[in-house]
Amino acid sequence: MVEQATGKQMATHRLVVVGGGFAGVALIKSLGWTDIEITLIDRRNYHLFQPLLYQVATGGLSPANISAPLREIFRRQKNCRTLLGEVTSIDPAARTLVMDEQTIPYDTLVVAAGAATSYFGNQAWEDHAVGLKTIEEATEIRSRILFAFERAELSHDPEEIRKLMTFAIVGGGPTGVEMAGAVSELAHYTLKGDFRSIDATKARILLIDGAERVLSSFDPSSSARALASLQRIGVEVWSKGRVKQVDREKLLVDRQGTLETVMAGTIVWAAGVKGAPLGAKVAQATGVAADKGGRIPVLPDLTVVNHSNIFVIGDLASVPMGEGGFVPGVAPAAMQMGQYVGKVLKSRLKNAKPPEPFQYFDKGSMATIGRAAAVVEMSWPKWKFGGFLAWVAWLFVHLSFLIEFENRLLVLLQWAGNYFTRNRSALLITNPGALTQELEEEKQRAARLAKDGLMETPQAKT
Amino acid sequence: MVEQATGKQMATHRLVVVGGGFAGVALIKSLGWTDIEITLIDRRNYHLFQPLLYQVATGGLSPANISAPLREIFRRQKNCRTLLGEVTSIDPAARTLVMDEQTIPYDTLVVAAGAATSYFGNQAWEDHAVGLKTIEEATEIRSRILFAFERAELSHDPEEIRKLMTFAIVGGGPTGVEMAGAVSELAHYTLKGDFRSIDATKARILLIDGAERVLSSFDPSSSARALASLQRIGVEVWSKGRVKQVDREKLLVDRQGTLETVMAGTIVWAAGVKGAPLGAKVAQATGVAADKGGRIPVLPDLTVVNHSNIFVIGDLASVPMGEGGFVPGVAPAAMQMGQYVGKVLKSRLKNAKPPEPFQYFDKGSMATIGRAAAVVEMSWPKWKFGGFLAWVAWLFVHLSFLIEFENRLLVLLQWAGNYFTRNRSALLITNPGALTQELEEEKQRAARLAKDGLMETPQAKT
Repeated sequence: MVEQATGKQMATHRLVVVGGGFAGVALIKSLGWTDIEITLIDRRNYHLFQPLLYQVATGGLSPANISAPLREIFRRQKNCRTLLGEVTSIDPAARTLVMDEQTIPYDTLVVAAGAATSYFGNQAWEDHAVGLKTIEEATEIRSRILFAFERAELSHDPEEIRKLMTFAIVGGGPTGVEMAGAVSELAHYTLKGDFRSIDATKARILLIDGAERVLSSFDPSSSARALASLQRIGVEVWSKGRVKQVDREKLLVDRQGTLETVMAGTIVWAAGVKGAPLGAKVAQATGVAADKGGRIPVLPDLTVVNHSNIFVIGDLASVPMGEGGFVPGVAPAAMQMGQYVGKVLKSRLKNAKPPEPFQYFDKGSMATIGRAAAVVEMSWPKWKFGGFLAWVAWLFVHLSFLIEFENRLLVLLQWAGNYFTRNRSALLITNPGALTQELEEEKQRAARLAKDGLMETPQAKT
Repeated sequence: MVEQATGKQMATHRLVVVGGGFAGVALIKSLGWTDIEITLIDRRNYHLFQPLLYQVATGGLSPANISAPLREIFRRQKNCRTLLGEVTSIDPAARTLVMDEQTIPYDTLVVAAGAATSYFGNQAWEDHAVGLKTIEEATEIRSRILFAFERAELSHDPEEIRKLMTFAIVGGGPTGVEMAGAVSELAHYTLKGDFRSIDATKARILLIDGAERVLSSFDPSSSARALASLQRIGVEVWSKGRVKQVDREKLLVDRQGTLETVMAGTIVWAAGVKGAPLGAKVAQATGVAADKGGRIPVLPDLTVVNHSNIFVIGDLASVPMGEGGFVPGVAPAAMQMGQYVGKVLKSRLKNAKPPEPFQYFDKGSMATIGRAAAVVEMSWPKWKFGGFLAWVAWLFVHLSFLIEFENRLLVLLQWAGNYFTRNRSALLITNPGALTQELEEEKQRAARLAKDGLMETPQAKT
């Protein structure tokens, strides 16, 4: 409790960590045997293994398979208390922050609030193109995909059916590629034979990417491998395709000068991320300017300039790296930052020499493409490979990082089941009321517009 | 497609089944090798194993563990098509029904729409006391329970903490008993040590039942066993307690003449069921009066009087049984009714002698109480037993009825994990926005009332 904390002798250092993602959890775990008094604040009661969210969005895994309750993670770490809430303001002069209605003092503050989906300034697109950062978004995408097939099965209009069976994924990074592969698996194998009027294997899966090639952060040879794998499983890839407009079930894409309209029953947005909204409050409180991606620039020791007791780590931090680049927003980088700040704090409390500036050690990158295919790039030795072997590597790396052992075992078994049967065990349309209500409102709006003589083309709006 | 169906030669019998619960699925499965053209209509895309919903509500299982997509169940049964939608009207004269905007013809109609939660005419109580019939309700209860502990951890007000850590379950039938046992497990073991300010094991779990004894449909000796088990794991049981009023986090209970107010952060309603809303449309269309529980009275062959081609089965049917009783609304009864109607239809199509009137074969009853305790009543041989053996029996009966093999295996493993670690793997607060928004609205309402001089007692409303 706050009163207890402030009442204690001042020797106890009070660390407040905002965010229980990869960075925050790694930091707190590294401080297990210290007497630092840690408060972890998160809006969610669980740590989320975001790299596997696309599996939830395509029904391969359940939300609980890729989540671990924060309280369970830190149950035995008695120097850490967890508070469920949202930070509303930070006061660096008073060394306090406000969470909901409570004022919480800190000696050191670490902000690890992560990233949010970026629609490049077009926040209105959010309603039509769902991002893939939260459990709720993943189950929403799952419901939309499955509901699109259901609506297609009921429809008698070939145009409508074509639209409903088109799945557009915007963004050709690992998330977009993995999502496209999984939707293809779902349509071509899992749902095969499930419908009587439509043929699920006729679904069109479109991956739209603004860059020259998919997985543009990888080596061109890996991109080529990924492209070949995607095409083999029936994914249509549009590189150099820039999305100009997103409407309900409709995309306007600039393909090297030609504007194309794509009608798609489901649109998934995997095109960009920005710093979490809390970043703006950190910028305001500390007087540093966030970069245009909403990330907070930090010094080589990951503190904010002029605020040696405020750290920003993980996806929210903008950390320069040799040759004008920045540390990428990936889980290993976040974990390394967390562990690094742990070292800094321990050295500070011992009045020891501070550690060397933070250096990101890139172990490599990997992305999976559907079932039994992936691309892997290792840093050392500098190996690049694809195919089944890469997929097995992907599998074991991801399993080994799943935090809780029980989850790991269940996910392995679930995957084994999914692999051999090609079934997916979590094909539920939850909260269908929201979906049908949305359709209903849309119909009523169209009716009103028609009555007012502002008729829209039916393809564009139903 | 409807057009195709009507265009076919009239020899093909068109059966429409509304509802993919235990009754509907059993019926359709029994018609696998016939050439009856079956249309299954459901508002959900999955079959739900309702008896295990309380495990989802307490974080022991994920929704997907107790659900099986209807399309997957009937993938290989090519004479069955599944439509996702809601039946809005039935026209027995035309032999058609309307689903959303489509008219669907039938030769035989089977309504197996199940039951809904009954608040005994006080539908407004629904907002404050969540029922346990759907996945959404179960995850809502899960979020409320976990969020109550989180709010208690943050609170400094002992009164508020006491309220938040009180969990009231209304209804002492198998659902209420199983729910109370599971909440007790959760509080006393799973969450033990997870909090720093509060002690989760101090939670108060209150089971309020209107009857003389819990599990009143069981033998008194089983009720006594269940009561002893409940009390051993710390559940407070109020028998003969009649709920007079339900407000936000507040219950008014008549305990044999004395009115008592119970402040409880979470209220679960397991007190009553009524026929699904579709029952009213069946009554209207066929001219029979629903009973006061909203169930449709049927003839001994499960058809509606004067409508030999309309059957009502499962929880929605009111089926008399010797000695003035009725067939209970349980899964085995629903399955038996489904299989029975399958037999009736097959004999009709062969112009054979109709089968004997439907007779419910009661195999017995069972209920589990927390971990490793249960009560079992077998019909033949007439054995009654409790304790660990009963729990093992409960486990295997429930596993054997889980429809999909993959689910069965995963549930077994999940339970094994839960049993040995006392962990629960699905402790997620999903959709927290809804919860906090509700709290926010409540606060604003209280502020408005206070301003208007209509101050309510803070205990009653915060």
